[in-house]
Amino acid sequence: MLGARGGLRALRCCSSSTSSSSSSSSSLPRELRVPAVRLRVREALRAREAAGEVKVQGWVRSVRSQKEILFLHINDGSSLESLQVVADPSLQNRDLTFGSAVEVQGKLVKSPHKMQNVELQAGAIRVVGPCDTLSFPLKFKERHPLEYVRQFPHLRCRSNVLGALLRIRSEATAAIHSFFQDNGFVHIHTPIITSNDCEGAGELFQIEVASSQVSRSSGEKRHHPKFQVLLTKQRAFTRVFTFGPTFRAENSQSRRHLAEFYMVEAELSFTESLQDIMQVMEDLFKTATSSVFSKCPHDVELFHKYVAPAQKGRLEQVLKNKFVIISYNEAVEILKQAPQTFTFKPEVAAVDLLVPGIGELCGGSLREERLPFLESRLQRLGLGDTYQWYLDLRKFGSVPHGGFGMGFERYLQYILGVDNIKDVIPFPRFPHSCLL
Amino acid sequence: MLGARGGLRALRCCSSSTSSSSSSSSSLPRELRVPAVRLRVREALRAREAAGEVKVQGWVRSVRSQKEILFLHINDGSSLESLQVVADPSLQNRDLTFGSAVEVQGKLVKSPHKMQNVELQAGAIRVVGPCDTLSFPLKFKERHPLEYVRQFPHLRCRSNVLGALLRIRSEATAAIHSFFQDNGFVHIHTPIITSNDCEGAGELFQIEVASSQVSRSSGEKRHHPKFQVLLTKQRAFTRVFTFGPTFRAENSQSRRHLAEFYMVEAELSFTESLQDIMQVMEDLFKTATSSVFSKCPHDVELFHKYVAPAQKGRLEQVLKNKFVIISYNEAVEILKQAPQTFTFKPEVAAVDLLVPGIGELCGGSLREERLPFLESRLQRLGLGDTYQWYLDLRKFGSVPHGGFGMGFERYLQYILGVDNIKDVIPFPRFPHSCLL
Repeated sequence: MLGARGGLRALRCCSSSTSSSSSSSSSLPRELRVPAVRLRVREALRAREAAGEVKVQGWVRSVRSQKEILFLHINDGSSLESLQVVADPSLQNRDLTFGSAVEVQGKLVKSPHKMQNVELQAGAIRVVGPCDTLSFPLKFKERHPLEYVRQFPHLRCRSNVLGALLRIRSEATAAIHSFFQDNGFVHIHTPIITSNDCEGAGELFQIEVASSQVSRSSGEKRHHPKFQVLLTKQRAFTRVFTFGPTFRAENSQSRRHLAEFYMVEAELSFTESLQDIMQVMEDLFKTATSSVFSKCPHDVELFHKYVAPAQKGRLEQVLKNKFVIISYNEAVEILKQAPQTFTFKPEVAAVDLLVPGIGELCGGSLREERLPFLESRLQRLGLGDTYQWYLDLRKFGSVPHGGFGMGFERYLQYILGVDNIKDVIPFPRFPHSCLL
Repeated sequence: MLGARGGLRALRCCSSSTSSSSSSSSSLPRELRVPAVRLRVREALRAREAAGEVKVQGWVRSVRSQKEILFLHINDGSSLESLQVVADPSLQNRDLTFGSAVEVQGKLVKSPHKMQNVELQAGAIRVVGPCDTLSFPLKFKERHPLEYVRQFPHLRCRSNVLGALLRIRSEATAAIHSFFQDNGFVHIHTPIITSNDCEGAGELFQIEVASSQVSRSSGEKRHHPKFQVLLTKQRAFTRVFTFGPTFRAENSQSRRHLAEFYMVEAELSFTESLQDIMQVMEDLFKTATSSVFSKCPHDVELFHKYVAPAQKGRLEQVLKNKFVIISYNEAVEILKQAPQTFTFKPEVAAVDLLVPGIGELCGGSLREERLPFLESRLQRLGLGDTYQWYLDLRKFGSVPHGGFGMGFERYLQYILGVDNIKDVIPFPRFPHSCLL
């Protein structure tokens, strides 16, 4: 395996107690032998009192050397804020640059600056991994545009904005799981590989074994399912959800489409009306959003301050008020009266959650549960045999049911005001682009 | 869309107040117009006192008609236990059979039986969807073997054992997410589509667009990443994890392999030794397992009672004690002294978590972070250009790092004592099998 290694590490080391400050050293300086509590930056920033000898590891966000004092800012991705380190200028070292990985040992003390509670008084600084700053695409103190950092999918998470985005994405994922668990939904892992062409449209990927053993290759069609699979489970659990990758082989370069994206999908049995579905949609949106806003206030603030300044006020209104429900007929009337000419005849699906700037965030409907109706329709289409399993679900205790799907990236776009969907997913996949 | 429908539903209805007990009726009987609280079976079972008029919906697990009284058991997948319904025999109906979907309205009263707190005294029973019991593969009161129900992936979740399994799987998923969130790991959605052949072995699937528009088809190789992608994020967050589908194009029919399975993967930066990795493995296993056992006691008990009677005691020991760590050399010595002859020369990876009955549950290692070493090795392999991004991660603030992966299905197999991996995933995919 390429990446595995063993053995002892020779760490580049510099310390105020040694004169060999810029050379490699395999014997650790005395300070580093003192047992120190390892703290993450987030934990260190929250510490209110001197916590004894601590060790903080991370990447250097700034170095400022003054005559009497050396200032560093260290970030380890645990929070947007960095930890200020103050040290004796003798700890300066040519490898101690923006982007380098360091380990700092010292004491947390009350900071004289009102912007932070504590700062780290360094006794020793080790450069664990230097950074070739000249070729490093992220530059010190520069606010790089999203389009620029998008070219470096493997490095852009070290920019403030993508770091914040991925922390928010992680919290939003957790909040969505919690919402469903708290409301009695069973989580189902729906398979990616399937023999069904679920959406009927054929805009799907086909896979085959890419093995050196040709005998295993197979031209057999494989499509992705999800929706119908979820339906099979809803027949046993009444409330199910899934949250996973979804694929579309659409040839779209739009700011709202990806070839691989994440969908939250929920299905409910014994639905009594569309109202049941709409209520879950609204509750999901509001609960998850409130949770993200309260758990990542600084990360969210970054977007609402620098990326989409008007979004915060809009969202506060959305969270405070009941969602507006308009009927199909009302919607068609509104569209007819609009000054724009539409390429397609205006049609509005049974339940769509539309939001400004994004359009369709969720789409859902009540599903057909009547066996005779489905049977005759599938027969006419010549699909009776292929969809026997689908008919089975109606044959053995059918129930009225419905559900909806929410595009997770569009959700993030909306709550953060991010214009391009490629900036809310770690590794965007779209036609003719598969970096990494 | 095939499944969508609208309009009013004509529900099959029977009630003690109407004589048309077995015919369809579009006008609801009086009882059903009384506003009733909709309760799930799990909630109804936990109700300690009469909760007024309630409505419970689910599938019939048993019907027993006596002269004076009609007994039903209703299950809606919210718990292993069913709710007992008692009703006047006049509510009996030819569609009220095992497997049918029903809605029962009535009062929750204290049950005279000591096995349950409450039972539902039905005022009205509606058969929402009848069940063709003759062709329904699940039979009343039969304990079907796992091999039998495996043939019906779309229906088997209505058996007790698969119902319990999927509730446990859902709780285990939540517990794993919680463990990592609570320990400061950022969740990363790693892409499925990739242009990298990550494992190097080539045992991967190849995908292409299965569209009617032939021009979009592309023979370009696409493989799945995950591991390396996770590494790029670890360079900004120090602790990251992912939990998603993984694919192997292995031609294995073994009870421990699938073509599509779920993996939990974690990567840590600034690791100081293998101990760091092993500690996370052990904590993850113990925390998740304890959480599942305490949240689904009845579901877990079903497995430990009927599927693998000896497993409970074994797991209690595992949870109580520190995991045993043996070195590579010790392991090789033990294997050399074993009476078996091995097909392959015994080799043990740097960090594997091995458990009885399953073998490798987790595998992990420290990764190579030294740039010059990687550079020369990739150059020799002629991969320097392809893996420039991988070298970049070492060029700009490299850190010692490591991680591990845990097969989620193997984890479930182990904690529940399930022999075949196909029984712990909703829709198993293995060579030449892709039902649904």
